[in-house]
Amino acid sequence: MKNPIIAAIESRVSANLFDAGRTLADEEIEELARLATRAPTAYNLQNWRFIAVRTPEAKARLRAAAYGQAKVSEAAVTYIVCGRKPSHTVVEERLRPSVEAGFMPAEMVGAWTAAVEDGYRDDPQKQRDEAVRTATLGAAFLMFAAQAHGLATGPMVGFDPAAVAREFALAADEIPVVLVAVGHAREGNWPQKPRLPVSRVLETV
Amino acid sequence: MKNPIIAAIESRVSANLFDAGRTLADEEIEELARLATRAPTAYNLQNWRFIAVRTPEAKARLRAAAYGQAKVSEAAVTYIVCGRKPSHTVVEERLRPSVEAGFMPAEMVGAWTAAVEDGYRDDPQKQRDEAVRTATLGAAFLMFAAQAHGLATGPMVGFDPAAVAREFALAADEIPVVLVAVGHAREGNWPQKPRLPVSRVLETV
Repeated sequence: MKNPIIAAIESRVSANLFDAGRTLADEEIEELARLATRAPTAYNLQNWRFIAVRTPEAKARLRAAAYGQAKVSEAAVTYIVCGRKPSHTVVEERLRPSVEAGFMPAEMVGAWTAAVEDGYRDDPQKQRDEAVRTATLGAAFLMFAAQAHGLATGPMVGFDPAAVAREFALAADEIPVVLVAVGHAREGNWPQKPRLPVSRVLETV
Repeated sequence: MKNPIIAAIESRVSANLFDAGRTLADEEIEELARLATRAPTAYNLQNWRFIAVRTPEAKARLRAAAYGQAKVSEAAVTYIVCGRKPSHTVVEERLRPSVEAGFMPAEMVGAWTAAVEDGYRDDPQKQRDEAVRTATLGAAFLMFAAQAHGLATGPMVGFDPAAVAREFALAADEIPVVLVAVGHAREGNWPQKPRLPVSRVLETV
């Protein structure tokens, strides 16, 4: 039998068609987000936020901000995955549980705080890159978590970031990076699109 | 028994300590990259490139560009995952196999080409965001693929992008987004660092 993770990677499709009649319980929406947050982040900053859009009213607002894409209405839920600009002020809180668990030396907290402060200061592009990277990692783990739950996913980058920020009251440091529709697929989705031969995108040195 | 994907998510650690005595065959290095490229990309652009660094000489150059991090030397291989700025000129080639496979209508190729051209033109930040997003998705799928192969992974953002670009002759449109060390873990890695309660990062609307 094929390894289940490899099977998931090879069978995943970017779903466009969802069964609009099937919803997800709030507990499952929360569980998928919990698993998404197991993705790694630099310095364990966890500089992300997830907005799960699942009521008809909220879906209508998100759909309008996503150029009318029907899957926002039809999927059970669409997560707005936001990245946040790194802030050294949160490092101590983010790392305290690792110190309390006994594996992280307490003196590293100060060092990591300084590393975040020094590493991102006065560099808005680096701050933004980190926000995009973090949110994208969260979205990828969310997609795997959904697949583990037998659900289809449809990632979207076609949306108006300013409209999403306005409609869902994002904070000034939050960037909406990707939308991920999650739900039960209906018939008719495309298969996974063929990829380039790996030799075209891999160099070994 | 727990779902294997969920088990992988919950058991993954960001490995720092690798068994320097164990290598990977080039076939396995290539297979992991092949699985990584099954990640989704906007318009199936596949705007990424992977450089697998696995010889002592190349590792030494990458380690120097990564502030001396030992895992670059000790892991069997470290992938430099690069994102590329989107280009409408590649859309036809990227989509032709989907048309030939019979599920994508031929007339959509022109529409998607125009969408890429119009969507990213004159917007360097949007181009860069797409490059970072694509490479990060590839890196996330690479991490899952490695886990499926029983391997540990150590993602790194601590490196000098200009030095990496210079040492590994990146093209002008390529951005080194993340390094992923892959190999056999040795004893002593930290467990997964505790995360915030999901209620702190999830809003349901």
